[in-house]
Amino acid sequence: MTAAATVLPAIEVDLEKIRAAHARIAAHVQCTPVLTSRSLDMATGATLFFKCENLQKVAAFKARGACNAVLSLSDAGAAKGVVTHSSGNHGAALAWAAARRGIASWIVMPSNSAVVKQNAVRGFGGNVRLCEPTLPAREVMCRSVLEETGATLIHPYDDWHVIAGQGTAALELLDAVPDLDVVIAPLGGGGLLSGTVIAAKGVRPAIAVYGAEPAGADDGARSLRAGHVIPQTNPRTIADGLRSSLGEKTFAVLSANIDGVGTVSEEAIVAAMRMTWEKLKVIIEPSAAVPLGALLERALSVSGKRVGIILSGGNVDLDRLPWQH
Amino acid sequence: MTAAATVLPAIEVDLEKIRAAHARIAAHVQCTPVLTSRSLDMATGATLFFKCENLQKVAAFKARGACNAVLSLSDAGAAKGVVTHSSGNHGAALAWAAARRGIASWIVMPSNSAVVKQNAVRGFGGNVRLCEPTLPAREVMCRSVLEETGATLIHPYDDWHVIAGQGTAALELLDAVPDLDVVIAPLGGGGLLSGTVIAAKGVRPAIAVYGAEPAGADDGARSLRAGHVIPQTNPRTIADGLRSSLGEKTFAVLSANIDGVGTVSEEAIVAAMRMTWEKLKVIIEPSAAVPLGALLERALSVSGKRVGIILSGGNVDLDRLPWQH
Repeated sequence: MTAAATVLPAIEVDLEKIRAAHARIAAHVQCTPVLTSRSLDMATGATLFFKCENLQKVAAFKARGACNAVLSLSDAGAAKGVVTHSSGNHGAALAWAAARRGIASWIVMPSNSAVVKQNAVRGFGGNVRLCEPTLPAREVMCRSVLEETGATLIHPYDDWHVIAGQGTAALELLDAVPDLDVVIAPLGGGGLLSGTVIAAKGVRPAIAVYGAEPAGADDGARSLRAGHVIPQTNPRTIADGLRSSLGEKTFAVLSANIDGVGTVSEEAIVAAMRMTWEKLKVIIEPSAAVPLGALLERALSVSGKRVGIILSGGNVDLDRLPWQH
Repeated sequence: MTAAATVLPAIEVDLEKIRAAHARIAAHVQCTPVLTSRSLDMATGATLFFKCENLQKVAAFKARGACNAVLSLSDAGAAKGVVTHSSGNHGAALAWAAARRGIASWIVMPSNSAVVKQNAVRGFGGNVRLCEPTLPAREVMCRSVLEETGATLIHPYDDWHVIAGQGTAALELLDAVPDLDVVIAPLGGGGLLSGTVIAAKGVRPAIAVYGAEPAGADDGARSLRAGHVIPQTNPRTIADGLRSSLGEKTFAVLSANIDGVGTVSEEAIVAAMRMTWEKLKVIIEPSAAVPLGALLERALSVSGKRVGIILSGGNVDLDRLPWQH
């Protein structure tokens, strides 16, 4: 099959937009710490710097993008609230960000999403709208909420304000550790990695920026090889934050900028997650372990380099840990 | 029984000694982050600031005191190495600190101590000497190592250099959050709490400093009420770092300075540990959860106050979590 010629959207985020996003959200989000571990350096043969977005508000970098998107709305637009579809961290982040601005939010979630996740959204003041766990049902529900409320849809990742917000984590990382050779972020829908590559190469053009994704959800690597978006149809990975397909905007950013994508086995994801808990003493979710997993499997070549890793989030069920049976 | 009139040792640590300790160890230890959580504030009715010594080297504040003690030795004394008895974090910390100075260490451990803890000491380059798990056997082994090597004994807590080192955590906490009303630290042998109270009241005389200890190992509270050290003979608590008796030096500091001690049930310790994992997304050991446990049980009165809590350590077995059966 020959791919149809794809018209990519123009890239609307640059370093200045990310700096503006940082100024906009700085009073609301945490400047998260950067941790190091001699043990993890020895395990990987590199010098690692972990940017702890698991210690961010709502325990995920998603707070940054959601906050930037909400604060970028006009007063008239904001007054009608925001809506999104998410069973994960973006939903909680948008509810949280909306509450910071004092506006309403509606979060469309599949009816089979964990009650604890629904309650997290409600805890931040969001209105949960449940739908059948199918793509058509989700789209119908989103449209219905949009028509009913006039709210603004904030896409989880294929949104320039969201991408700019996510890039602020790399901005802070390079501010704390200016002489990095490499930055690695997990790759799911591509919002975090897109913001990261624009910020990192903007500040330090010679830096290499890699994505890391589960081998069981490797649509990102396949899409970049193919030169067009290949949807993720049947993801098989514990890294539940990385099951999405790329969007048009994130594909445009990544295909123009990224230095490579490492794919990681499920075993390495779980091993990296446990090593991070044991050595860094912070709680990360499986998705956040994928970059370290890529280094453990030597899926990315960083020997002797100074490597920044973005620990994307820390939302896990403490009663069900993946190394326990 | 009437207690014999006790001659307390003169207190040899003051704020200046703690500042000097901080200058001495700063290149070796982490200036650990201070984390906050709106959920934990709501659960306790106070505004909490958690000083993350679980993210310290060797995952415990013990790195500070051990490092200060080792760096305070003369070159001639240091050349013969250091020795201590510990089945826990102090042993690993002393081995680590000795390695930083390039000197030998001998850590006397009970033969029933976990192999993972023995290996941690060896991983830092320490020489493990196993003895029967009794006080006489431990003292015989320590004496034997001292005679054999000429090394210096570094007590886990009843040592002025160790106390001064432990106080540097509170110094950093008050530097980060100057307007605290209260600081709370766990109380076991009293090294951390002694350093904390000297540092905190030195910097901010009006501050209140409390200890928190397990109800099942409440020798600290009982000793302070009685006016002399009552040894802990049969501790029953999951908080394995807090089973020690007070020492002469730590009793002298605490009886002259401390504003109170809250005692905490085992249930509250486990609940506070889990809440910390869930809300702060950092891994703490049971001992580190005792101050928050005291607040959850309203064992200390801090309503509406700005409260610093020292999270003392993060060394736990990830295969055996106390909320799992």
